[in-house]
Amino acid sequence: MRIGIIGGSGYTGVELLRLLSVRDDIEIVFISSRAQAGTRVDALFPGLRGHVDLLFSDPDDVVDASCDLVFFATPNGTAMNQAPALLEKGTRVIDLSADFRLKDIGVWERWYGMAHTNAEWVVKAVYGLPEMNRENIRQAQLVANPGCYPTAVQLGFLPLLEAGVVDVSSLIADAKSGITGAGRGASVPNLLAEASDSFKAYAVAGHRHLPEIEQGLANMTSDSVSLTFTPHLLPIIRGIHATLYAKLTKDVNLQELFENRFLDEPFVDVMPAGAHPETRSVRGTNMCRLAVHQPQGRGTAVVLAVEDNLVKGAAGQAIQNMNLMLGLSETKGLMQPALMP
Amino acid sequence: MRIGIIGGSGYTGVELLRLLSVRDDIEIVFISSRAQAGTRVDALFPGLRGHVDLLFSDPDDVVDASCDLVFFATPNGTAMNQAPALLEKGTRVIDLSADFRLKDIGVWERWYGMAHTNAEWVVKAVYGLPEMNRENIRQAQLVANPGCYPTAVQLGFLPLLEAGVVDVSSLIADAKSGITGAGRGASVPNLLAEASDSFKAYAVAGHRHLPEIEQGLANMTSDSVSLTFTPHLLPIIRGIHATLYAKLTKDVNLQELFENRFLDEPFVDVMPAGAHPETRSVRGTNMCRLAVHQPQGRGTAVVLAVEDNLVKGAAGQAIQNMNLMLGLSETKGLMQPALMP
Amino acid sequence: MRIGIIGGSGYTGVELLRLLSVRDDIEIVFISSRAQAGTRVDALFPGLRGHVDLLFSDPDDVVDASCDLVFFATPNGTAMNQAPALLEKGTRVIDLSADFRLKDIGVWERWYGMAHTNAEWVVKAVYGLPEMNRENIRQAQLVANPGCYPTAVQLGFLPLLEAGVVDVSSLIADAKSGITGAGRGASVPNLLAEASDSFKAYAVAGHRHLPEIEQGLANMTSDSVSLTFTPHLLPIIRGIHATLYAKLTKDVNLQELFENRFLDEPFVDVMPAGAHPETRSVRGTNMCRLAVHQPQGRGTAVVLAVEDNLVKGAAGQAIQNMNLMLGLSETKGLMQPALMP
Amino acid sequence: MRIGIIGGSGYTGVELLRLLSVRDDIEIVFISSRAQAGTRVDALFPGLRGHVDLLFSDPDDVVDASCDLVFFATPNGTAMNQAPALLEKGTRVIDLSADFRLKDIGVWERWYGMAHTNAEWVVKAVYGLPEMNRENIRQAQLVANPGCYPTAVQLGFLPLLEAGVVDVSSLIADAKSGITGAGRGASVPNLLAEASDSFKAYAVAGHRHLPEIEQGLANMTSDSVSLTFTPHLLPIIRGIHATLYAKLTKDVNLQELFENRFLDEPFVDVMPAGAHPETRSVRGTNMCRLAVHQPQGRGTAVVLAVEDNLVKGAAGQAIQNMNLMLGLSETKGLMQPALMP
Repeated sequence: MRIGIIGGSGYTGVELLRLLSVRDDIEIVFISSRAQAGTRVDALFPGLRGHVDLLFSDPDDVVDASCDLVFFATPNGTAMNQAPALLEKGTRVIDLSADFRLKDIGVWERWYGMAHTNAEWVVKAVYGLPEMNRENIRQAQLVANPGCYPTAVQLGFLPLLEAGVVDVSSLIADAKSGITGAGRGASVPNLLAEASDSFKAYAVAGHRHLPEIEQGLANMTSDSVSLTFTPHLLPIIRGIHATLYAKLTKDVNLQELFENRFLDEPFVDVMPAGAHPETRSVRGTNMCRLAVHQPQGRGTAVVLAVEDNLVKGAAGQAIQNMNLMLGLSETKGLMQPALMP
Repeated sequence: MRIGIIGGSGYTGVELLRLLSVRDDIEIVFISSRAQAGTRVDALFPGLRGHVDLLFSDPDDVVDASCDLVFFATPNGTAMNQAPALLEKGTRVIDLSADFRLKDIGVWERWYGMAHTNAEWVVKAVYGLPEMNRENIRQAQLVANPGCYPTAVQLGFLPLLEAGVVDVSSLIADAKSGITGAGRGASVPNLLAEASDSFKAYAVAGHRHLPEIEQGLANMTSDSVSLTFTPHLLPIIRGIHATLYAKLTKDVNLQELFENRFLDEPFVDVMPAGAHPETRSVRGTNMCRLAVHQPQGRGTAVVLAVEDNLVKGAAGQAIQNMNLMLGLSETKGLMQPALMP
Repeated sequence: MRIGIIGGSGYTGVELLRLLSVRDDIEIVFISSRAQAGTRVDALFPGLRGHVDLLFSDPDDVVDASCDLVFFATPNGTAMNQAPALLEKGTRVIDLSADFRLKDIGVWERWYGMAHTNAEWVVKAVYGLPEMNRENIRQAQLVANPGCYPTAVQLGFLPLLEAGVVDVSSLIADAKSGITGAGRGASVPNLLAEASDSFKAYAVAGHRHLPEIEQGLANMTSDSVSLTFTPHLLPIIRGIHATLYAKLTKDVNLQELFENRFLDEPFVDVMPAGAHPETRSVRGTNMCRLAVHQPQGRGTAVVLAVEDNLVKGAAGQAIQNMNLMLGLSETKGLMQPALMP
Repeated sequence: MRIGIIGGSGYTGVELLRLLSVRDDIEIVFISSRAQAGTRVDALFPGLRGHVDLLFSDPDDVVDASCDLVFFATPNGTAMNQAPALLEKGTRVIDLSADFRLKDIGVWERWYGMAHTNAEWVVKAVYGLPEMNRENIRQAQLVANPGCYPTAVQLGFLPLLEAGVVDVSSLIADAKSGITGAGRGASVPNLLAEASDSFKAYAVAGHRHLPEIEQGLANMTSDSVSLTFTPHLLPIIRGIHATLYAKLTKDVNLQELFENRFLDEPFVDVMPAGAHPETRSVRGTNMCRLAVHQPQGRGTAVVLAVEDNLVKGAAGQAIQNMNLMLGLSETKGLMQPALMP
């Protein structure tokens, strides 16, 4: 299979390379980066020395490469302009940015602060959360790969909302992300000298992943969903931990509910009762580990969900979607154990 | 003033030394440690070289030292046995452990897993949260110094509960603590190789600080309080961040409410509207910084509270209480700026 | 191939599992741990959930398992007593401890503080540094797997000493190791609260790896070697960085010398001239990356060598040796790119 | 005393504020920053809330403020242009940049890549290492405050060179610095995602502190000095650890030599024989701690030197110099214990 990557100099781009470069069924035809065009990939990312023998190419030079599938690992606002040309030619596309995630164009434009240029493909795009949309993803020409927070939060709430056992009008997601979630751009607040040995919330007034999560949760229930979503910045490289709170409206065996829902899911692991998953237990892997608690036997369910934001929260899930789209085994290339310690 | 410290080889003990050793109005008469008796303090803590010229003494040898005030920085279960002898002689005591914090002996025994040996002094003890109990602390002979989580959570909820503007039956405290909160004992899970570059919740089923917090919150309201409390372990040395959620029952200007409540408090800083306090902004200081939000204008108040768990969450608050008890300026020795970066 | 691991609850044991569990040509027959016997491996190491379905077994119960090869990942002093029984039966053994590394029993006993119980197998043991001893390793029944520091330091000095271009009487190795090098035992100095955000040297007066390194260096030259070796503790999980200093005695093109020496080595990567390898560029991999400098054109060569102390410095090199001993491809199972970022 | 700070938005500027804001004998008249002019200082550095009530002013607006002493905490190349106007008016100046450190203008221009504009004041400037130049500093109108690495390396070599007991033609300084040494500018390599959990050398081919150190060392001996200087980047916020190697030419009691040399120095602490100073033991303090070893009794002295790069390596030493220049107690405001843990 011939694969291309547009926008390869960020963390999700290089993570696609890390995961794809060891596969013998995949040929990476190009990886583009406007800023790094002409640079050897392994000069920028020496961890790939011996694994990737490509130079970054100019994105304008790769439009005509005939690929089976192209990943967009570009900033928001790029894929909506550049993907359609490929899509019209029949190339399949997975967009890791937010351009095709929200079905409501008005909501998208308000949160992303720009006009959307391609409503047509928003309609056709399939939201790439396999645990919700596996069959549609197989057939999709365009997959909107979920955001990092939305993946963890949706998977954690999924059994509760599908089963209709919680009050969906007062959901809370207290989420914490490693700093690669902020991208590879130079910025003072993300310096080691500023962000290490410290912790803070951010964007409490409103984060772009809120409408994406609420859209996903709404698809799990017929009731009107309202979520309080509080993101925080962890002084770690990779990893998201979402702590989810929901008021129980029915008496239910939570452990059984979670185990049954995810029994056949290769990348969701329900931990034993009483467990506390650590982010490092999924470091470098496509796994989302969950634990569910009901503290003091009171009426609140507490779900703990961890994932690697660059893998299940981005590049790994994109490859899971690619596997589905290309008719390959869904788990191919995604079964390495965590790097732990 | 002559001061003694019983149980000085842990993090709260050495933090008392760091803060007291620079004062010329305080003489540290002894610091005891059964395990380290005979060792120079600055051999164990080289950061104190040139500042502390004491050896750790045996706790049994210091009972008769005539002190104005003695701190207990001992494990739970020690002060309830050893403090009464000092108290009977008229010495004033600040206990940094949990022995005298809970008024309900039965609750204490259930959570701490041992029989309580001194119900009498539990009755007389004053809970050392100056923002609630300042006048009682001044007169107290025995102060029960609050736990680290309880300080941040109570201060963050205080204006909301006193004003009666939230539903106190569904409070949530999602709290994150630096690893010094776990103490200085050797333990595999707290090794750098295990805890760094990772994040997890712990004790979700029930943490000993839950009844302490609920007791404190109950004193702020006449309604029946119920809290879901989820502690997490941060890969940082010092700092607690509590993210608090409460359902608003009245329309209120939250920013004004918080600013007015803490206007005269020297160690509570209400940040400007929209702010996100960082734990490092209080590193090494006795300050608790708060911010209050109402995301999307919906019905949930979100309070962000940060403190240094070893200072306002332990030794600093103990010294604040000491200052009040000894008739000194409340802020004496506690006004250094944060070590930032 | 049937493989066993004795002493599997430490970091090198679990790292063997991480690297071997994904292979379909290897069956892990047992992994033993006296302390953890009966515990599921993935309960202790949740990163292995879904990958390892074993319980830790008692080391006494596994002597009779018929294995092609057994790894000892035990503390020093264990393999010299337990390996001979297996060796006599014809089982091949790779010992990751120091028991069979030093040919001079007297030196070993002085540095390790105990009597050696098996001088016979010390003679037969092959020192498992493939870049020096590849052919002997293939035939060996017992391989003494090198220490973490010795691997990096020997590989870095190798071209200089073999070529005879430096004064071997005044070598200096200033080495820095991530904290997993200290093992998984509970210890106060290795707590995150003690070791993070700090840095120190240790064992400057003498570290056990000094005689091992000097023995290896002596095999590269006919002159008398003298090394000053200073280990330091890095606040990172994995990674060794050795900075090596040697006085040049001849005019030589250092870059060419290094590139030529390691041209065919799959796990030594000589970086381009002027480079500074980072430890993270080998995180999780079996690669040792080197760069060589001659600052200011003066007479001192400075070599920078990085490796992952748990992989090329321990479990990965052990598997490289296993591959050689079992006639498999030397690189099998060891070609994953680094986890970076 | 009226004090001004030019260039206050970097780490050395804010560190001057942290240390000066608690003093009642010092009035901070202004702190300037071209980029931040008009911003409240405590909006940028919330750790200073309640301690500093200033706005950053435009550097052009502060020239006429009548100050007793002005600090330049500006990038290299600024003070040489702006300080002379103040100096001509009689104001005393401490420059924390490199502009006046090197006596040889040609060397300065080669290493700093620009023409020097004020050779006259280079001649008059006193190099601000009190342990070498205390009396000259008292009288100086212009002090060139030493670099961070040069302070640690010079203090560590000082007793050896003054006593003439080592070969000064083959000195080695293997130095490691926390990341605040790289300043507060936005940069990809200094992001937490890039620099944490990793370690590397940098500028091995030549670092600007090399000529500064060699100039200082030359002043301690009449022999010709040659140093190999290798800086490394530590994933910590504050702290420098220099590991120094020198070939002994005479038999000498190193411990006594060091203790005697620094007996009366308030900010150099010679640790007991066999010690390994940690960077955290000087976190936030103006102390430099040293230990000296002679491994295996062989002919190489190994000196371990730690300091806080922002305090003794920058702002603290500048205040020590200010105290000397203004006739105050040399240790005033600099005697807080380390923040440890």
